[in-house]
Amino acid sequence: MKNGMAHLNRNAQRIIDQIIADDERFGVAYGRGSLGEHLIDAGAASPGGLEVGLRMAEICMGGLGTVSLALDRHNRKWPLSVTVHSSQPVLACLGSQYAGWRLSHEKYFAMGSGPARLLARVEPLFEEITYSETDASTSVLLLETSKAPPPAVVEKVSKATGLGPDALTFIYAPTQSLAGSVQIIGRSLEVALHKAHSLKFPLDAIVDGTGCAPVPAPHPDFLQAMGRTNDAIIYGGLVQLFVLGSAADARALAEELPSCRSRDYGQPFAEIFEKFNGDFYAIDPHLFSPAEVIVTAVETGDTFRAGEWNRDMLEQSLG
Amino acid sequence: MKNGMAHLNRNAQRIIDQIIADDERFGVAYGRGSLGEHLIDAGAASPGGLEVGLRMAEICMGGLGTVSLALDRHNRKWPLSVTVHSSQPVLACLGSQYAGWRLSHEKYFAMGSGPARLLARVEPLFEEITYSETDASTSVLLLETSKAPPPAVVEKVSKATGLGPDALTFIYAPTQSLAGSVQIIGRSLEVALHKAHSLKFPLDAIVDGTGCAPVPAPHPDFLQAMGRTNDAIIYGGLVQLFVLGSAADARALAEELPSCRSRDYGQPFAEIFEKFNGDFYAIDPHLFSPAEVIVTAVETGDTFRAGEWNRDMLEQSLG
Amino acid sequence: MKNGMAHLNRNAQRIIDQIIADDERFGVAYGRGSLGEHLIDAGAASPGGLEVGLRMAEICMGGLGTVSLALDRHNRKWPLSVTVHSSQPVLACLGSQYAGWRLSHEKYFAMGSGPARLLARVEPLFEEITYSETDASTSVLLLETSKAPPPAVVEKVSKATGLGPDALTFIYAPTQSLAGSVQIIGRSLEVALHKAHSLKFPLDAIVDGTGCAPVPAPHPDFLQAMGRTNDAIIYGGLVQLFVLGSAADARALAEELPSCRSRDYGQPFAEIFEKFNGDFYAIDPHLFSPAEVIVTAVETGDTFRAGEWNRDMLEQSLG
Repeated sequence: MKNGMAHLNRNAQRIIDQIIADDERFGVAYGRGSLGEHLIDAGAASPGGLEVGLRMAEICMGGLGTVSLALDRHNRKWPLSVTVHSSQPVLACLGSQYAGWRLSHEKYFAMGSGPARLLARVEPLFEEITYSETDASTSVLLLETSKAPPPAVVEKVSKATGLGPDALTFIYAPTQSLAGSVQIIGRSLEVALHKAHSLKFPLDAIVDGTGCAPVPAPHPDFLQAMGRTNDAIIYGGLVQLFVLGSAADARALAEELPSCRSRDYGQPFAEIFEKFNGDFYAIDPHLFSPAEVIVTAVETGDTFRAGEWNRDMLEQSLG
Repeated sequence: MKNGMAHLNRNAQRIIDQIIADDERFGVAYGRGSLGEHLIDAGAASPGGLEVGLRMAEICMGGLGTVSLALDRHNRKWPLSVTVHSSQPVLACLGSQYAGWRLSHEKYFAMGSGPARLLARVEPLFEEITYSETDASTSVLLLETSKAPPPAVVEKVSKATGLGPDALTFIYAPTQSLAGSVQIIGRSLEVALHKAHSLKFPLDAIVDGTGCAPVPAPHPDFLQAMGRTNDAIIYGGLVQLFVLGSAADARALAEELPSCRSRDYGQPFAEIFEKFNGDFYAIDPHLFSPAEVIVTAVETGDTFRAGEWNRDMLEQSLG
Repeated sequence: MKNGMAHLNRNAQRIIDQIIADDERFGVAYGRGSLGEHLIDAGAASPGGLEVGLRMAEICMGGLGTVSLALDRHNRKWPLSVTVHSSQPVLACLGSQYAGWRLSHEKYFAMGSGPARLLARVEPLFEEITYSETDASTSVLLLETSKAPPPAVVEKVSKATGLGPDALTFIYAPTQSLAGSVQIIGRSLEVALHKAHSLKFPLDAIVDGTGCAPVPAPHPDFLQAMGRTNDAIIYGGLVQLFVLGSAADARALAEELPSCRSRDYGQPFAEIFEKFNGDFYAIDPHLFSPAEVIVTAVETGDTFRAGEWNRDMLEQSLG
């Protein structure tokens, strides 16, 4: 592909432009911040909704994936689900969608995701993601929060991306909102890739992937809302990865990848979080993965499956 | 959203333009009527088909929703189903999709649906739908019939919408056609909203929604065709609504909404219709709702479920 | 439809243009051949992937159909499936998608599919497909192979289509690749139409159709790869056809159409192929059809079903 551009920032901007043009349809409020930055409230003071949540997930993936709703009647209590697919899963999910950019200023704190991360490259992950986007004239950052970023955060993003504030769009919605929930449920594939990476599976070997998870009801309490979105993936998510390499490596990945292999598996996330006194980093990071995993070794033709849907946990968490 | 426009008429026109540009693909015949009105036959003398039926459903929703086919193998006998979603369900379904505009002249009779209703505002429902579309230069009306509207009906629509006949498109297909069936099956969400409204649930509180129902075989007999499309929703439809307000109100809505709560539930629609000697208005209006309902109270995080798929009735009606 | 154009070549070119513009996203390599022909490698030396496989299937159908991925959890071991739909199934599938154009030169051999076939009309099938595309200024041919066509083949296609080599695009991927597998799995409807034709069912009577089949893991061995893609349809495919004519004819079609009516049904395809010593033409052509068939007679309202999903065979073949 000789240094080709995948245009994640351009793709994300196109989706942003559609959302702004159809702000009423998407239930969002669009405005400009004090530094000229573009702001889209998709679920804080604005109603937002499922549709803009899907678009936010696509923005997060830099347009390198599709994110859609389905009604899966096989899943009687939670038929509404979000399906995600990308033929560039590492770039889309880890290079862009992963909420890995910590942005804080005084009392403001939010994790940033989306293609601005590819320009800023401030996270250690970018030592392994060699793709570099040199053709971006605008960029987008998604913030999982109910507040627009303060000027100091806008300036930090501007400096890190090398783009002026008026070339930046911040789109935000809290976890408790419909859009916020949906964009998190659209991370089933990303969560699997992140764990594969932490298991030292080579990123270059992951060539395609798809995932789905049920959409939980948003919850007004942040901890419950976060718990439900995590549980929807941990106890109800399904991911299939297509990988290069040996059958043995694919089998090992399949066996380690599902959430059930984690020490902390077996309780609703909100309870686990309380058990560790709210110390997020005390929770086993390997808990964050789909319930059910299929890994296909495309060079050998073998497929391995592990983990399964956990109805009891979904009942307890999703209601 | 400070009087924002949701552009239902503009959106519908864009879909109309695609259909006209690809008339052969969509199996439609496009022409002009005697007053210059645009006419699209999508299933009367033209073959039409499932695809234009989906587009008709999207036109009916003023482009504020997605309508798609799925093959759901969980439903063995009727896997083909239509899924609909809107993050503006009240505007899309009641403001536009509901077939509430009675248009007749001499022997001609048809119920009109689509975004022209939002301009005409001749139905009592518009006392409660405050959104008003002031930016429409063209408009679209869908007629569930096999005949183009006579000039007197075109003039009536022109007068009511304030647009010249050459700014109006009428797209029509009978219930007995593939397109006609599909655009009705795309009304699962609309039917739920209409019943919620008749149950006095506040429209402003319905913020998102999705639904699906199996696609029945069209039937050459109008009564059987109408019966099947009704039964597909009444005995096979599933809808999930996302609502504001208390858990108690959401629970009450869920309990009252499914078709099984109707006095007339339990027979194929065509038989019910005959039982009442063809008097449509003698049938309990609360019969017209999905078999299965999920209501999520987004402000409390609670979800309530009621009703269920009725296989026996589907067997009797859909064949 | 008075000689309307369905624009299969124009539609295919639009998809090609998108693929070239987003070559990195789609994992393809684009270049020009020695005669100026456009070449897209979608899975030979390039990674390709599921997404470009879907687009290849849409190209093959001349844009007259939709091809999409779904995760169907009802199908526990092979949830990933490809769903295809067309309201112009005969034109899309037989007029364009069917891989019926044998192209060979010295050691090079490939079956060609896509809308270039409609211009060339070199196959006997075109005696029955009266639609003729007179507005094509460019054309596309898909080759199920790992090698770009040699100049002699490009010249043959140029001569047969009446278009210069620089107006032709060849897109290719071997059966062993992800894109190659997916574009074959997108042929469930085409396979059903081809068998219906061989059963002498009148093509004009097939007015709409949809199908799906699970996506097998690609296999590095050509025979195994071909076997799996065939088996996914033969033992796991579902198709619904909407037909004109009598209920008796629809019933007869449904009864004859599924793969289980073939003499050679009951073994993985690769084994059958070996049993006949690799003589493709010794295999019963009626084996090539979906496992499960639904035929709806739209003029009578009757629906007939036959055949079923064969889990044992899928286990043996797909792994």
